[in-house]
Amino acid sequence: MENEITKKDKYDSYVVVHNIAKRHNVGTLARSATAFGVSELILVGRRDFNSFGSHGSTTHLRFRHFHSLALARSFLKERDCDICGVEITDNAMAVNEHPFRKSTAFLLGNEGTGLSAKECEICDFFVYIPQYGGGTASLNVTVAASIVLHHFGVWAGFPERSREGNKFLVAEKPANQVRRSLCTESAESIAEERRLKKENAANGFFDENGKDEAPSNLLDALFDS
Amino acid sequence: MENEITKKDKYDSYVVVHNIAKRHNVGTLARSATAFGVSELILVGRRDFNSFGSHGSTTHLRFRHFHSLALARSFLKERDCDICGVEITDNAMAVNEHPFRKSTAFLLGNEGTGLSAKECEICDFFVYIPQYGGGTASLNVTVAASIVLHHFGVWAGFPERSREGNKFLVAEKPANQVRRSLCTESAESIAEERRLKKENAANGFFDENGKDEAPSNLLDALFDS
Repeated sequence: MENEITKKDKYDSYVVVHNIAKRHNVGTLARSATAFGVSELILVGRRDFNSFGSHGSTTHLRFRHFHSLALARSFLKERDCDICGVEITDNAMAVNEHPFRKSTAFLLGNEGTGLSAKECEICDFFVYIPQYGGGTASLNVTVAASIVLHHFGVWAGFPERSREGNKFLVAEKPANQVRRSLCTESAESIAEERRLKKENAANGFFDENGKDEAPSNLLDALFDS
Repeated sequence: MENEITKKDKYDSYVVVHNIAKRHNVGTLARSATAFGVSELILVGRRDFNSFGSHGSTTHLRFRHFHSLALARSFLKERDCDICGVEITDNAMAVNEHPFRKSTAFLLGNEGTGLSAKECEICDFFVYIPQYGGGTASLNVTVAASIVLHHFGVWAGFPERSREGNKFLVAEKPANQVRRSLCTESAESIAEERRLKKENAANGFFDENGKDEAPSNLLDALFDS
């Protein structure tokens, strides 16, 4: 038991999503991430998303945003994290074999296209989920992520959450500090955002609907579940 | 390796869903079921559902329908199956400990309410998925089912599907016999349906929209993905 607590103290898990598709459902992903003890959900590039299906769990999850994969990678390497791509590559290891070594950030591909070459470049290793039937080429990305996060929690020996009846106990929402705990924009990040906004004004990357979305509005969107 | 192939020959898995909610997304569930080598998806009671998210996998999955839990149980017991409830009960075992013994049918609860007392009664045992964070009382039901089916496949030693590039190979659709392979209505089942239809005419169980849905139309709905 003591060993397990030590492990939890020792290891963290992160989820990294790069240029999330509009319809990508971060809500269900956030729900699984909180269930499996993920420390932070890191959005790279786009950070506007649909949180339907989160069942309020987005308020319990810490979000962080970076404008590039390189910045996200630097942040994770400072924290001594492995970056693990969730993808069916030739050298990917079966996730149920628990090929983990330390704190790990899991980079998820977009539904359909999977991880791009650029995304694969920042990964230290890859895991995949073995399939046994011929009915589908791949799993739903949230399902795949959930299976991987579950295995990491088992491997890391995270202590189990208490239950009451047929449910796990939900913690109280972080009072008063919801905004602050979610808004992790550093001064550097804000400066970087201003710079990129100018650069990207033409392609509409930050401005898909023709209106400027300030960070506060984007954070508000996290609570629409 | 030989041992693993023997195991696959030996064990089957089934998914059982009772009175599925209209909005319950069987599509993503079917996709996971085919990925993890499930033999049949068994619908009990209601059998009209939304297959969005299946990515065509419903055509590869065998569906079966029963009008009552008792009939489903009889069918499974004839096949020497354990019935395993996926539910956080006091005596549930952690799914990652692989508490399986033989072919197993997994009974899923409805999102929100979980398994009813009546549903629990037909279960031989229960599994749950350990949670480590305080952000949610439970997982999305399809995510939970996918994790359980994944573990059963690992335990049973199902042989892995071949891959091509970053995808698992999808089998060809069963030509010409799609309808037949999906339509598993026996003469008894049709007689039972007629009897129950009369009984349930008052409560609208088979007739939610005020129009009679013939089995053929319901099967057509499976292909809308």
